[in-house]
Amino acid sequence: VTADAAPLRWEGGALLLLDQRRLPAQEAWLRCETPEEVADCIRTLAVRGAPAIGLAAAYGVALARAGGGDVEAAAELLRGARPTAVNLSWAVDRALSAADPLGFAQRLHEEQRAADRRLSELGAERFAKGDRALTHCNTGPLATGGFGTAGGVLRAAWERDRLAQVWVDETRPLLQGARLTAWELGRAGIPFKVVADSAAGGLMARGLVDRIVVGADRIAANGDVANKVGTYPLAVLAARHGIQFYVAAPVSTIDPDTPTGAQIPIEERDPSEVSDEGNAFNPAFDVTPAELVTAIFTESGVLEAPYAESIARVLALKGG
Amino acid sequence: VTADAAPLRWEGGALLLLDQRRLPAQEAWLRCETPEEVADCIRTLAVRGAPAIGLAAAYGVALARAGGGDVEAAAELLRGARPTAVNLSWAVDRALSAADPLGFAQRLHEEQRAADRRLSELGAERFAKGDRALTHCNTGPLATGGFGTAGGVLRAAWERDRLAQVWVDETRPLLQGARLTAWELGRAGIPFKVVADSAAGGLMARGLVDRIVVGADRIAANGDVANKVGTYPLAVLAARHGIQFYVAAPVSTIDPDTPTGAQIPIEERDPSEVSDEGNAFNPAFDVTPAELVTAIFTESGVLEAPYAESIARVLALKGG
Repeated sequence: VTADAAPLRWEGGALLLLDQRRLPAQEAWLRCETPEEVADCIRTLAVRGAPAIGLAAAYGVALARAGGGDVEAAAELLRGARPTAVNLSWAVDRALSAADPLGFAQRLHEEQRAADRRLSELGAERFAKGDRALTHCNTGPLATGGFGTAGGVLRAAWERDRLAQVWVDETRPLLQGARLTAWELGRAGIPFKVVADSAAGGLMARGLVDRIVVGADRIAANGDVANKVGTYPLAVLAARHGIQFYVAAPVSTIDPDTPTGAQIPIEERDPSEVSDEGNAFNPAFDVTPAELVTAIFTESGVLEAPYAESIARVLALKGG
Repeated sequence: VTADAAPLRWEGGALLLLDQRRLPAQEAWLRCETPEEVADCIRTLAVRGAPAIGLAAAYGVALARAGGGDVEAAAELLRGARPTAVNLSWAVDRALSAADPLGFAQRLHEEQRAADRRLSELGAERFAKGDRALTHCNTGPLATGGFGTAGGVLRAAWERDRLAQVWVDETRPLLQGARLTAWELGRAGIPFKVVADSAAGGLMARGLVDRIVVGADRIAANGDVANKVGTYPLAVLAARHGIQFYVAAPVSTIDPDTPTGAQIPIEERDPSEVSDEGNAFNPAFDVTPAELVTAIFTESGVLEAPYAESIARVLALKGG
C-alpha cells in the first residue's frame, strides 16, 4: 500500500479488503464474495473511514446484484452497518439505482480519488512553512481508498514544504491514529509523534500546535460536524488557543437532510472496545458545532461561515 | 484492600507495596528493604498517586537511616524518582530532618488518612442527590494510602446519597482510571462507567455530567494545578458547559515556592508507554490555570478564587 494505493480493490469478481484491524502488525487481505461479508467487514472495522466504507458498500451492492439474491435486503444490511456515516447510505442508494452497480462503484472510486486530491490541494494552501499540525483518527489513503481527506491535506502540505511535523492523536479506543495514521505517515516520510488523545490540550497550551485538521463522518446542513469521538474537545481547545481548526471531507459527507448536529445519530459501539471489564460506555463519534470550525475543505471549494449559506451553495453546484 | 486499607504498609522492617501495575488482574505485594528499591517502585509506578508516593518515600528515608548507608544520597534518589509531585520532596525533606524517620512516616500516614477524610467530607457537601460526576486518573485509597482525595470526595458523596453515577476516564496511557479507579468503585459498590478520555467532551455536550472532580500532583501559589495529562482539557470543556470543576488535594500538594503553573516541571515519560512503535511523545501531566478551577478541597478548608489569597491563608494556618 503506497499513499496512492487503495485499501480495497475489485479482483476476480470479489471485493478485496486490507484488514485494517491487523495493521500495522500484518498486511492481510480479506476476500468478500457476498454483500453480507462486506457488511460484516464494515461493522467490524476491517474497512473503515467514511469514504472507504461508502465505496466498499457500493461494491457490496454490485456483489448483491451479481449474486442474484434479494438486492433490497442486502442494501438495507449495508446501510445499517455503521449508522453515523452518511456516505454509506448515499453510496448504497446510488449503486442501487445504477443499471451497472459495479461500473458505478468503479467510477465512484475514481471520482473520490480526484476529489481527495483537489480538497487536499485546497487545504494545503492554508498551511505555512514550519507548521506543526495535529490530527485525530485516520483520514489518509486507508480511510478513503484515495489520497486521503485530512491525511491528504497533510501530505499535500508536506509536498509543498508547508509542514514541519504532525502530532498524531492515538485515537482511543481502537487506536486508528497510533496504528494507521502513524503507519501512513511513516511510509510517506513525514515526521510525526503519536500522543495520548488527552495530551493534545497541553501541547496547545505550550504553543506546540499551529493547526488542527480532521476528517468528518457526517456534516449537517448548518455545518455541525460528526467525527470520531475526541474531535469536539480538540475544537474547543483550538478555539481557546486561537488555533485554526479545519475539517477536510468530500461533498458527499454533507447531508442536506440533517439540519443540525443534534439530528445526527451517534453510533454506540461495544463497551469491550474500551475496557475488558465491560463496564464502559463507548460512543464512537461526537459533534463539533459549526462555530468552532475555521473552514471545511471540499473538492468543490473551501467552505467558511456562515455555513448554512456556503453549504447550500456547494450542494447546489454539485446537484446542477 | 478495602476502601480504607492502604496499598502500602510497614512490616518486619520493610515497606510492603501493592504492585499497582498488575491491578486489577493480580494483587501482588512487593517487599522493599532499601531506599533504592523504593525509588524504583516510585519511578516504575508500582506505587503512584502524589500522596502515596510521598508516604512511600518517607518510609524509604527510614530504610536508608536503618541501613546505615548514605542517607543524603538516598534522599536525593527518592526526590528525583518523579519530578512533578511536590509531596515527594516535601515528605523526603521532613523525614530526613526527623530524629526518627520511621516514626515520622507512620505519623504522616495517620495524618494523611485524617486529611483525606476531612477534605472528602468538605467536597461532598458541594454534591447534590442524583449527580453524575466525572473523574480522571486514580485518586482513591490506592493513590493516597488513605480514603482518597477526588476518589474520597466521590465516596463521601455516595455515602451521603449525593451521587448517582461516576464517569471514569480510562486515563491513557497507563489506564489508571480503567484499571484502578474502576476496581475501587466496583469494590465500594458505586455505579460507574469507564469512557475513553476523549469521550468526556461529548458527554458534557449531551448534558450527562454534573460535576468534575480530580486530584493534583502540585498546586502553584496562584492556584494553577498540575495533574495527570488530560486534566486541562476537562477543565476547558467544563468551563464551556458551565460544569463545576473541583480539585481535591491535601495542603501538602500546594507548593508556595512555585509561583505559577509555568514553573512546574512536567515529567516526560517513556514513549513506549504510549506506543510500541516508539515514535511518541509522553508528557505525564498538564497544567490547569486557576481561572478554570471552581474550588480546591483541602483538609483545612475549601479554597476559592482569588486563589493567591485563599492559598496564602491556608498555608499560614498550616505553618502556624
